[in-house]
Amino acid sequence: MSDVPWPREEFLPRIRRIGEERYHSLHPFHRLLHGGKLNRGQVQAWVLNRFYYQARIPLKDAALLSRMEDPALRRSWRKRIEEHDGGPGNEGGIERWLVLAEAVGLDRGRVLRHEGLLPGVRFAVDAYLQFVRERSLIEAIASSLTELFAPAIHEERIAGLLKHYDFANERTLAYFQRRLKEAPEDVAFTLECVLERADTRERQQAVLDAVTFKTDLLWAQLDALHHAYVVPALPPPGAFRPEQDG
Amino acid sequence: MSDVPWPREEFLPRIRRIGEERYHSLHPFHRLLHGGKLNRGQVQAWVLNRFYYQARIPLKDAALLSRMEDPALRRSWRKRIEEHDGGPGNEGGIERWLVLAEAVGLDRGRVLRHEGLLPGVRFAVDAYLQFVRERSLIEAIASSLTELFAPAIHEERIAGLLKHYDFANERTLAYFQRRLKEAPEDVAFTLECVLERADTRERQQAVLDAVTFKTDLLWAQLDALHHAYVVPALPPPGAFRPEQDG
Repeated sequence: MSDVPWPREEFLPRIRRIGEERYHSLHPFHRLLHGGKLNRGQVQAWVLNRFYYQARIPLKDAALLSRMEDPALRRSWRKRIEEHDGGPGNEGGIERWLVLAEAVGLDRGRVLRHEGLLPGVRFAVDAYLQFVRERSLIEAIASSLTELFAPAIHEERIAGLLKHYDFANERTLAYFQRRLKEAPEDVAFTLECVLERADTRERQQAVLDAVTFKTDLLWAQLDALHHAYVVPALPPPGAFRPEQDG
Repeated sequence: MSDVPWPREEFLPRIRRIGEERYHSLHPFHRLLHGGKLNRGQVQAWVLNRFYYQARIPLKDAALLSRMEDPALRRSWRKRIEEHDGGPGNEGGIERWLVLAEAVGLDRGRVLRHEGLLPGVRFAVDAYLQFVRERSLIEAIASSLTELFAPAIHEERIAGLLKHYDFANERTLAYFQRRLKEAPEDVAFTLECVLERADTRERQQAVLDAVTFKTDLLWAQLDALHHAYVVPALPPPGAFRPEQDG
Protein backbone atom coordinates (compact mmCIF):
# COMPACT_ATOMS: atom_id res chain seq x y z
CA MET A 1 0.00 0.00 0.00
CA SER A 2 1.29 3.46 -0.90
CA ASP A 3 2.20 5.63 2.06
CA VAL A 4 1.08 8.81 0.36
CA PRO A 5 -2.39 9.80 1.59
CA TRP A 6 -5.02 10.54 -1.02
CA PRO A 7 -5.75 14.26 -1.34
CA ARG A 8 -9.11 15.22 0.12
CA GLU A 9 -10.68 15.60 -3.33
CA GLU A 10 -9.85 11.97 -4.01
CA PHE A 11 -10.55 10.53 -0.55
CA LEU A 12 -14.03 12.02 -0.16
CA PRO A 13 -15.38 10.56 -3.43
CA ARG A 14 -14.06 7.18 -2.32
CA ILE A 15 -16.20 7.43 0.79
CA ARG A 16 -19.22 8.53 -1.23
CA ARG A 17 -18.76 5.71 -3.72
CA ILE A 18 -19.27 3.15 -0.93
CA GLY A 19 -22.68 4.69 -0.35
CA GLU A 20 -23.55 4.61 -4.04
CA GLU A 21 -22.63 0.94 -4.30
CA ARG A 22 -23.56 -0.57 -0.93
CA TYR A 23 -25.89 1.63 1.17
CA HIS A 24 -29.12 -0.09 2.19
CA SER A 25 -31.14 2.41 0.15
CA LEU A 26 -30.40 -0.08 -2.66
CA HIS A 27 -31.89 -3.05 -0.81
CA PRO A 28 -35.07 -4.47 -2.38
CA PHE A 29 -36.79 -4.45 1.00
CA HIS A 30 -36.58 -0.66 1.06
CA ARG A 31 -37.88 -0.48 -2.49
CA LEU A 32 -40.92 -2.48 -1.39
CA LEU A 33 -41.39 -0.44 1.78
CA HIS A 34 -41.15 2.93 0.08
CA GLY A 35 -43.20 1.81 -2.89
CA GLY A 36 -46.16 0.75 -0.73
CA LYS A 37 -45.72 -2.93 -1.59
CA LEU A 38 -45.53 -4.28 1.96
CA ASN A 39 -48.57 -5.44 3.89
CA ARG A 40 -49.27 -4.52 7.48
CA GLY A 41 -47.45 -7.52 9.00
CA GLN A 42 -44.34 -6.87 6.91
CA VAL A 43 -44.26 -3.22 7.95
CA GLN A 44 -44.67 -4.29 11.58
CA ALA A 45 -41.76 -6.72 11.20
CA TRP A 46 -39.59 -3.88 9.89
CA VAL A 47 -40.57 -1.47 12.67
CA LEU A 48 -40.08 -4.08 15.40
CA ASN A 49 -36.72 -5.29 14.13
CA ARG A 50 -35.34 -1.88 13.27
CA PHE A 51 -36.18 -0.79 16.81
CA TYR A 52 -33.36 -3.00 18.07
CA TYR A 53 -30.95 -0.89 16.03
CA GLN A 54 -32.53 2.34 17.29
CA ALA A 55 -32.34 1.19 20.89
CA ARG A 56 -28.67 0.23 20.59
CA ILE A 57 -27.50 3.49 18.98
CA PRO A 58 -27.09 5.41 22.25
CA LEU A 59 -25.20 2.44 23.76
CA LYS A 60 -22.93 2.50 20.74
CA ASP A 61 -22.37 6.23 21.17
CA ALA A 62 -21.76 5.86 24.90
CA ALA A 63 -19.15 3.14 24.20
CA LEU A 64 -17.51 5.53 21.76
CA LEU A 65 -17.67 8.38 24.25
CA SER A 66 -15.98 6.17 26.83
CA ARG A 67 -12.98 5.90 24.52
CA MET A 68 -12.56 9.60 23.73
CA GLU A 69 -9.87 11.16 25.88
CA ASP A 70 -10.47 14.67 24.58
CA PRO A 71 -13.24 16.52 26.50
CA ALA A 72 -13.98 18.74 23.49
CA LEU A 73 -14.54 15.68 21.32
CA ARG A 74 -16.79 14.15 23.99
CA ARG A 75 -18.80 17.38 24.28
CA SER A 76 -19.49 17.33 20.55
CA TRP A 77 -20.28 13.63 20.37
CA ARG A 78 -22.57 13.65 23.42
CA LYS A 79 -25.29 15.35 21.39
CA ARG A 80 -26.00 12.06 19.63
CA ILE A 81 -26.99 10.34 22.85
CA GLU A 82 -29.34 13.19 23.70
CA GLU A 83 -30.90 13.00 20.24
CA HIS A 84 -31.92 9.40 20.86
CA ASP A 85 -32.65 9.41 24.58
CA GLY A 86 -34.29 12.83 24.71
CA GLY A 87 -34.03 15.75 27.10
CA PRO A 88 -35.84 18.98 27.97
CA GLY A 89 -38.35 19.73 25.21
CA ASN A 90 -37.29 16.72 23.16
CA GLU A 91 -38.87 13.28 23.60
CA GLY A 92 -35.91 11.74 21.71
CA GLY A 93 -35.57 9.40 18.75
CA ILE A 94 -36.39 6.22 20.64
CA GLU A 95 -39.71 7.61 21.84
CA ARG A 96 -40.47 8.87 18.31
CA TRP A 97 -39.83 5.36 17.00
CA LEU A 98 -42.22 3.91 19.59
CA VAL A 99 -44.91 6.31 18.35
CA LEU A 100 -44.39 4.84 14.89
CA ALA A 101 -44.52 1.30 16.34
CA GLU A 102 -47.87 1.95 17.99
CA ALA A 103 -49.17 3.58 14.81
CA VAL A 104 -48.51 0.40 12.82
CA GLY A 105 -50.36 -1.62 15.45
CA LEU A 106 -47.56 -3.02 17.58
CA ASP A 107 -47.71 -3.27 21.36
CA ARG A 108 -45.26 -0.84 22.93
CA GLY A 109 -44.16 -3.28 25.64
CA ARG A 110 -43.48 -6.03 23.14
CA VAL A 111 -41.36 -3.69 21.05
CA LEU A 112 -39.44 -2.48 24.12
CA ARG A 113 -38.72 -6.08 25.12
CA HIS A 114 -37.61 -6.92 21.53
CA GLU A 115 -39.98 -9.89 21.53
CA GLY A 116 -39.75 -11.82 18.26
CA LEU A 117 -36.60 -10.01 17.15
CA LEU A 118 -34.85 -11.79 14.29
CA PRO A 119 -31.55 -13.31 15.49
CA GLY A 120 -29.88 -12.12 12.28
CA VAL A 121 -30.82 -8.53 13.11
CA ARG A 122 -29.54 -8.94 16.67
CA PHE A 123 -26.20 -10.34 15.51
CA ALA A 124 -25.71 -7.55 12.95
CA VAL A 125 -26.50 -4.77 15.42
CA ASP A 126 -24.39 -6.35 18.17
CA ALA A 127 -21.49 -6.51 15.72
CA TYR A 128 -21.74 -2.72 15.45
CA LEU A 129 -21.34 -2.27 19.21
CA GLN A 130 -18.42 -4.67 19.23
CA PHE A 131 -16.75 -2.85 16.35
CA VAL A 132 -16.99 0.47 18.16
CA ARG A 133 -15.56 -1.04 21.35
CA GLU A 134 -12.65 -2.90 19.76
CA ARG A 135 -11.41 -1.01 16.74
CA SER A 136 -9.23 2.09 16.64
CA LEU A 137 -10.95 5.35 17.54
CA ILE A 138 -10.83 6.62 13.96
CA GLU A 139 -12.52 3.45 12.68
CA ALA A 140 -15.14 3.65 15.42
CA ILE A 141 -15.91 7.25 14.49
CA ALA A 142 -15.79 6.60 10.76
CA SER A 143 -18.50 3.95 11.03
CA SER A 144 -20.96 6.82 11.53
CA LEU A 145 -20.14 8.31 8.12
CA THR A 146 -23.06 6.43 6.59
CA GLU A 147 -25.04 9.44 7.81
CA LEU A 148 -23.71 11.10 4.67
CA PHE A 149 -26.15 8.91 2.77
CA ALA A 150 -29.07 9.06 5.21
CA PRO A 151 -30.94 12.25 4.21
CA ALA A 152 -31.73 10.91 0.73
CA ILE A 153 -33.25 7.70 2.08
CA HIS A 154 -35.20 9.55 4.78
CA GLU A 155 -36.71 11.94 2.23
CA GLU A 156 -37.63 9.02 -0.01
CA ARG A 157 -39.11 7.17 2.96
CA ILE A 158 -41.21 10.05 4.23
CA ALA A 159 -42.65 10.67 0.76
CA GLY A 160 -43.22 6.97 0.09
CA LEU A 161 -44.85 6.17 3.41
CA LEU A 162 -47.10 9.26 3.27
CA LYS A 163 -48.24 8.29 -0.19
CA HIS A 164 -48.89 4.60 0.38
CA TYR A 165 -49.79 3.86 4.00
CA ASP A 166 -52.70 4.94 6.18
CA PHE A 167 -50.62 5.02 9.36
CA ALA A 168 -48.26 7.65 7.96
CA ASN A 169 -48.62 11.26 9.04
CA GLU A 170 -46.53 14.07 10.47
CA ARG A 171 -46.75 12.68 13.99
CA THR A 172 -45.94 9.04 13.19
CA LEU A 173 -43.07 9.92 10.85
CA ALA A 174 -41.55 12.49 13.19
CA TYR A 175 -38.50 10.27 13.71
CA PHE A 176 -37.45 10.54 10.08
CA GLN A 177 -38.35 14.23 9.79
CA ARG A 178 -36.17 15.01 12.79
CA ARG A 179 -33.25 12.96 11.44
CA LEU A 180 -33.33 15.10 8.29
CA LYS A 181 -32.18 17.95 10.49
CA GLU A 182 -29.91 16.07 12.92
CA ALA A 183 -27.98 13.75 10.59
CA PRO A 184 -26.33 16.50 8.48
CA GLU A 185 -25.17 18.29 11.65
CA ASP A 186 -23.82 15.05 13.10
CA VAL A 187 -22.05 13.95 9.97
CA ALA A 188 -20.41 17.33 9.35
CA PHE A 189 -18.65 16.95 12.67
CA THR A 190 -17.83 13.25 12.05
CA LEU A 191 -16.33 14.08 8.68
CA GLU A 192 -14.18 16.81 10.20
CA CYS A 193 -12.88 14.36 12.87
CA VAL A 194 -12.12 11.71 10.29
CA LEU A 195 -10.43 13.98 7.76
CA GLU A 196 -8.24 15.46 10.47
CA ARG A 197 -7.13 12.04 11.75
CA ALA A 198 -6.84 10.08 8.51
CA ASP A 199 -3.39 11.44 7.71
CA THR A 200 -1.88 8.29 6.20
CA ARG A 201 -3.06 6.07 3.36
CA GLU A 202 -3.37 3.19 5.83
CA ARG A 203 -5.70 5.18 8.08
CA GLN A 204 -7.71 6.35 5.09
CA GLN A 205 -8.13 2.73 4.01
CA ALA A 206 -9.23 1.83 7.56
CA VAL A 207 -11.89 4.58 7.27
CA LEU A 208 -13.15 3.16 3.97
CA ASP A 209 -13.24 -0.34 5.48
CA ALA A 210 -15.20 0.95 8.50
CA VAL A 211 -17.81 2.54 6.21
CA THR A 212 -18.02 -0.70 4.22
CA PHE A 213 -18.49 -2.69 7.43
CA LYS A 214 -21.31 -0.35 8.43
CA THR A 215 -23.07 -0.78 5.08
CA ASP A 216 -22.74 -4.56 5.55
CA LEU A 217 -24.48 -4.51 8.91
CA LEU A 218 -27.29 -2.27 7.67
CA TRP A 219 -27.78 -4.51 4.63
CA ALA A 220 -27.72 -7.70 6.74
CA GLN A 221 -30.62 -6.41 8.83
CA LEU A 222 -32.75 -6.07 5.72
CA ASP A 223 -31.57 -9.43 4.39
CA ALA A 224 -32.84 -11.05 7.57
CA LEU A 225 -36.17 -9.23 7.20
CA HIS A 226 -36.46 -10.02 3.52
CA HIS A 227 -35.64 -13.68 4.07
CA ALA A 228 -38.08 -14.02 6.93
CA TYR A 229 -40.98 -11.96 5.59
CA VAL A 230 -40.69 -11.50 1.79
CA VAL A 231 -39.14 -13.86 -0.74
CA PRO A 232 -36.19 -13.63 -3.23
CA ALA A 233 -32.60 -14.89 -3.56
CA LEU A 234 -30.02 -12.16 -3.82
CA PRO A 235 -26.50 -12.15 -2.41
CA PRO A 236 -25.43 -8.86 -0.82
CA PRO A 237 -22.78 -6.70 -2.53
CA GLY A 238 -19.35 -8.24 -2.44
CA ALA A 239 -20.56 -11.70 -1.42
CA PHE A 240 -19.80 -14.99 -3.14
CA ARG A 241 -21.84 -15.51 -6.29
CA PRO A 242 -22.27 -18.97 -7.79
CA GLU A 243 -21.45 -19.22 -11.49
CA GLN A 244 -24.53 -18.88 -13.66
CA ASP A 245 -24.54 -22.41 -15.02
CA GLY A 246 -24.44 -24.00 -11.53
CA MET B 1 -38.93 -18.14 39.01
CA SER B 2 -38.94 -21.09 41.40
CA ASP B 3 -35.71 -21.60 43.34
CA VAL B 4 -36.01 -25.38 43.32
CA PRO B 5 -33.81 -26.86 40.61
CA TRP B 6 -35.39 -29.33 38.20
CA PRO B 7 -34.33 -32.91 38.87
CA ARG B 8 -31.92 -34.26 36.26
CA GLU B 9 -34.64 -36.38 34.62
CA GLU B 10 -36.62 -33.21 33.97
CA PHE B 11 -33.73 -30.87 33.13
CA LEU B 12 -32.12 -33.11 30.50
CA PRO B 13 -35.30 -33.48 28.41
CA ARG B 14 -35.65 -29.68 28.48
CA ILE B 15 -32.21 -29.41 26.88
CA ARG B 16 -33.06 -32.07 24.31
CA ARG B 17 -36.36 -30.40 23.45
CA ILE B 18 -34.48 -27.30 22.30
CA GLY B 19 -32.69 -29.47 19.77
CA GLU B 20 -35.93 -31.06 18.60
CA GLU B 21 -37.53 -27.67 18.07
CA ARG B 22 -34.71 -25.39 16.95
CA TYR B 23 -31.56 -27.24 15.83
CA HIS B 24 -30.45 -26.38 12.29
CA SER B 25 -31.06 -29.95 11.17
CA LEU B 26 -34.62 -28.61 10.67
CA HIS B 27 -33.54 -25.78 8.35
CA PRO B 28 -34.72 -26.14 4.74
CA PHE B 29 -31.21 -25.41 3.48
CA HIS B 30 -30.00 -28.64 5.09
CA ARG B 31 -32.92 -30.55 3.63
CA LEU B 32 -31.88 -29.32 0.17
CA LEU B 33 -28.20 -30.06 0.79
CA HIS B 34 -28.74 -33.57 2.12
CA GLY B 35 -31.38 -34.35 -0.48
CA GLY B 36 -29.08 -33.55 -3.40
CA LYS B 37 -31.14 -30.53 -4.44
CA LEU B 38 -28.34 -27.94 -4.43
CA ASN B 39 -26.26 -27.17 -7.49
CA ARG B 40 -22.50 -26.84 -7.47
CA GLY B 41 -22.48 -23.10 -6.77
CA GLN B 42 -24.87 -23.46 -3.84
CA VAL B 43 -22.77 -26.24 -2.30
CA GLN B 44 -19.67 -24.05 -2.76
CA ALA B 45 -21.44 -21.18 -1.00
CA TRP B 46 -22.23 -23.45 1.93
CA VAL B 47 -18.68 -24.81 2.20
CA LEU B 48 -17.11 -21.36 1.93
CA ASN B 49 -19.41 -19.73 4.46
CA ARG B 50 -19.42 -22.59 6.93
CA PHE B 51 -15.62 -22.47 6.89
CA TYR B 52 -15.78 -19.19 8.79
CA TYR B 53 -17.53 -21.05 11.61
CA GLN B 54 -14.99 -23.89 11.47
CA ALA B 55 -12.09 -21.46 11.56
CA ARG B 56 -13.47 -19.59 14.57
CA ILE B 57 -14.19 -22.68 16.70
CA PRO B 58 -10.64 -23.00 18.11
CA LEU B 59 -10.61 -19.24 18.88
CA LYS B 60 -13.89 -19.73 20.73
CA ASP B 61 -12.44 -22.63 22.68
CA ALA B 62 -9.25 -20.72 23.46
CA ALA B 63 -11.34 -17.81 24.79
CA LEU B 64 -13.22 -20.28 26.95
CA LEU B 65 -9.97 -21.91 28.09
CA SER B 66 -8.66 -18.48 29.09
CA ARG B 67 -11.55 -18.18 31.54
CA MET B 68 -11.19 -21.56 33.25
CA GLU B 69 -9.32 -21.31 36.51
CA ASP B 70 -9.27 -25.05 37.13
CA PRO B 71 -6.30 -26.79 35.44
CA ALA B 72 -8.20 -30.09 35.30
CA LEU B 73 -11.04 -28.40 33.43
CA ARG B 74 -8.57 -26.76 31.03
CA ARG B 75 -6.84 -30.09 30.39
CA SER B 76 -10.14 -31.68 29.39
CA TRP B 77 -11.30 -28.74 27.26
CA ARG B 78 -7.95 -28.33 25.44
CA LYS B 79 -8.69 -31.44 23.38
CA ARG B 80 -11.19 -29.43 21.33
CA ILE B 81 -8.54 -27.04 20.09
CA GLU B 82 -6.34 -29.93 19.06
CA GLU B 83 -9.25 -31.55 17.22
CA HIS B 84 -9.59 -28.51 15.00
CA ASP B 85 -6.00 -27.35 14.68
CA GLY B 86 -4.42 -30.80 14.45
CA GLY B 87 -1.33 -32.35 15.99
CA PRO B 88 0.89 -35.42 15.60
CA GLY B 89 -0.85 -37.93 13.32
CA ASN B 90 -3.95 -35.72 12.98
CA GLU B 91 -4.29 -33.05 10.29
CA GLY B 92 -7.18 -31.48 12.25
CA GLY B 93 -10.73 -30.45 11.42
CA ILE B 94 -9.80 -27.21 9.65
CA GLU B 95 -7.53 -29.02 7.22
CA ARG B 96 -10.20 -31.68 6.68
CA TRP B 97 -12.68 -28.92 5.82
CA LEU B 98 -10.22 -27.43 3.32
CA VAL B 99 -10.00 -30.82 1.61
CA LEU B 100 -13.78 -30.67 1.23
CA ALA B 101 -13.53 -27.10 -0.08
CA GLU B 102 -11.07 -28.09 -2.80
CA ALA B 103 -13.19 -31.11 -3.68
CA VAL B 104 -16.20 -28.88 -4.44
CA GLY B 105 -14.01 -26.69 -6.67
CA LEU B 106 -13.10 -23.80 -4.39
CA ASP B 107 -9.66 -22.22 -4.26
CA ARG B 108 -7.98 -22.99 -0.93
CA GLY B 109 -6.51 -19.49 -0.59
CA ARG B 110 -9.85 -17.83 -1.22
CA VAL B 111 -11.49 -19.99 1.43
CA LEU B 112 -8.71 -19.30 3.94
CA ARG B 113 -9.08 -15.54 3.35
CA HIS B 114 -12.90 -15.81 3.73
CA GLU B 115 -13.33 -13.99 0.42
CA GLY B 116 -16.99 -13.47 -0.40
CA LEU B 117 -18.15 -14.46 3.08
CA LEU B 118 -21.74 -13.43 3.77
CA PRO B 119 -21.84 -10.62 6.37
CA GLY B 120 -24.79 -12.33 8.05
CA VAL B 121 -22.68 -15.44 8.62
CA ARG B 122 -19.80 -13.36 9.95
CA PHE B 123 -22.06 -11.52 12.42
CA ALA B 124 -23.65 -14.75 13.68
CA VAL B 125 -20.32 -16.49 14.23
CA ASP B 126 -18.75 -13.43 15.84
CA ALA B 127 -21.70 -13.29 18.22
CA TYR B 128 -20.69 -16.78 19.38
CA LEU B 129 -17.17 -15.63 20.27
CA GLN B 130 -18.56 -12.63 22.07
CA PHE B 131 -21.00 -14.77 24.03
CA VAL B 132 -18.23 -17.05 25.22
CA ARG B 133 -16.10 -14.08 26.26
CA GLU B 134 -18.81 -12.16 28.11
CA ARG B 135 -21.27 -14.56 29.68
CA SER B 136 -20.85 -16.61 32.84
CA LEU B 137 -18.61 -19.67 32.55
CA ILE B 138 -21.53 -22.07 32.80
CA GLU B 139 -23.35 -20.32 29.94
CA ALA B 140 -20.19 -20.28 27.84
CA ILE B 141 -19.71 -24.01 28.39
CA ALA B 142 -23.40 -24.81 27.90
CA SER B 143 -23.38 -23.23 24.43
CA SER B 144 -21.47 -26.33 23.28
CA LEU B 145 -24.31 -28.64 24.27
CA THR B 146 -25.67 -28.51 20.72
CA GLU B 147 -23.14 -31.29 20.14
CA LEU B 148 -25.82 -33.51 21.68
CA PHE B 149 -27.73 -33.06 18.44
CA ALA B 150 -24.76 -33.21 16.02
CA PRO B 151 -24.26 -36.95 15.40
CA ALA B 152 -27.72 -37.35 13.83
CA ILE B 153 -27.14 -34.51 11.36
CA HIS B 154 -23.64 -35.73 10.52
CA GLU B 155 -24.90 -39.22 9.77
CA GLU B 156 -27.68 -37.83 7.61
CA ARG B 157 -25.21 -35.56 5.84
CA ILE B 158 -22.64 -38.26 5.09
CA ALA B 159 -25.32 -40.55 3.67
CA GLY B 160 -27.00 -37.75 1.70
CA LEU B 161 -23.82 -36.32 0.21
CA LEU B 162 -22.46 -39.76 -0.74
CA LYS B 163 -25.72 -40.59 -2.48
CA HIS B 164 -26.22 -37.35 -4.40
CA TYR B 165 -22.93 -35.62 -5.16
CA ASP B 166 -19.93 -36.67 -7.25
CA PHE B 167 -17.43 -34.88 -5.01
CA ALA B 168 -18.40 -36.95 -1.96
CA ASN B 169 -16.18 -39.81 -0.86
CA GLU B 170 -14.43 -41.07 2.25
CA ARG B 171 -11.58 -38.59 1.85
CA THR B 172 -13.66 -35.47 1.18
CA LEU B 173 -16.18 -36.23 3.94
CA ALA B 174 -13.53 -37.11 6.53
CA TYR B 175 -14.43 -34.03 8.56
CA PHE B 176 -17.93 -35.30 9.30
CA GLN B 177 -16.83 -38.90 9.81
CA ARG B 178 -14.29 -37.77 12.41
CA ARG B 179 -16.84 -35.58 14.21
CA LEU B 180 -19.05 -38.66 14.64
CA LYS B 181 -16.37 -39.95 16.98
CA GLU B 182 -15.25 -36.67 18.59
CA ALA B 183 -18.56 -34.95 19.30
CA PRO B 184 -20.00 -37.61 21.64
CA GLU B 185 -16.77 -37.62 23.68
CA ASP B 186 -16.78 -33.81 23.84
CA VAL B 187 -20.39 -33.48 24.78
CA ALA B 188 -20.27 -36.14 27.49
CA PHE B 189 -17.72 -34.00 29.29
CA THR B 190 -19.64 -30.77 28.61
CA LEU B 191 -22.81 -32.27 29.99
CA GLU B 192 -21.02 -33.41 33.14
CA CYS B 193 -19.63 -29.87 33.67
CA VAL B 194 -23.02 -28.31 33.14
CA LEU B 195 -25.01 -30.70 35.32
CA GLU B 196 -22.52 -30.28 38.14
CA ARG B 197 -22.67 -26.46 38.00
CA ALA B 198 -26.36 -25.89 37.24
CA ASP B 199 -27.41 -26.31 40.85
CA THR B 200 -30.16 -23.66 40.94
CA ARG B 201 -33.22 -23.14 38.77
CA GLU B 202 -31.78 -19.82 37.63
CA ARG B 203 -28.55 -21.42 36.42
CA GLN B 204 -30.51 -24.20 34.74
CA GLN B 205 -32.55 -21.59 32.89
CA ALA B 206 -29.32 -19.81 31.89
CA VAL B 207 -28.12 -23.13 30.43
CA LEU B 208 -31.33 -23.53 28.42
CA ASP B 209 -31.03 -19.94 27.17
CA ALA B 210 -27.41 -20.54 26.14
CA VAL B 211 -28.42 -23.60 24.10
CA THR B 212 -31.24 -21.59 22.51
CA PHE B 213 -28.81 -18.79 21.64
CA LYS B 214 -26.52 -21.34 20.01
CA THR B 215 -29.34 -22.77 17.90
CA ASP B 216 -30.19 -19.21 16.84
CA LEU B 217 -26.69 -18.52 15.56
CA LEU B 218 -26.50 -21.82 13.70
CA TRP B 219 -29.90 -21.17 12.14
CA ALA B 220 -28.99 -17.58 11.19
CA GLN B 221 -26.01 -18.82 9.18
CA LEU B 222 -28.29 -20.97 7.05
CA ASP B 223 -30.84 -18.17 6.76
CA ALA B 224 -28.15 -15.96 5.29
CA LEU B 225 -27.17 -18.72 2.85
CA HIS B 226 -30.76 -19.51 1.96
CA HIS B 227 -31.60 -15.87 1.40
CA ALA B 228 -28.53 -15.26 -0.72
CA TYR B 229 -28.49 -18.48 -2.75
CA VAL B 230 -31.88 -20.20 -2.66
CA VAL B 231 -35.35 -18.63 -2.35
CA PRO B 232 -38.22 -18.79 0.26
CA ALA B 233 -39.74 -16.72 3.07
CA LEU B 234 -39.63 -18.37 6.43
CA PRO B 235 -39.13 -16.74 9.83
CA PRO B 236 -36.85 -18.67 12.20
CA PRO B 237 -38.33 -20.36 15.29
CA GLY B 238 -39.48 -17.89 17.88
CA ALA B 239 -39.37 -14.87 15.57
CA PHE B 240 -42.16 -12.40 14.90
CA ARG B 241 -44.79 -13.75 12.53
CA PRO B 242 -47.16 -11.41 10.67
CA GLU B 243 -50.81 -12.29 10.97
CA GLN B 244 -52.04 -14.36 8.06
CA ASP B 245 -54.39 -11.77 6.60
CA GLY B 246 -51.66 -9.11 6.40
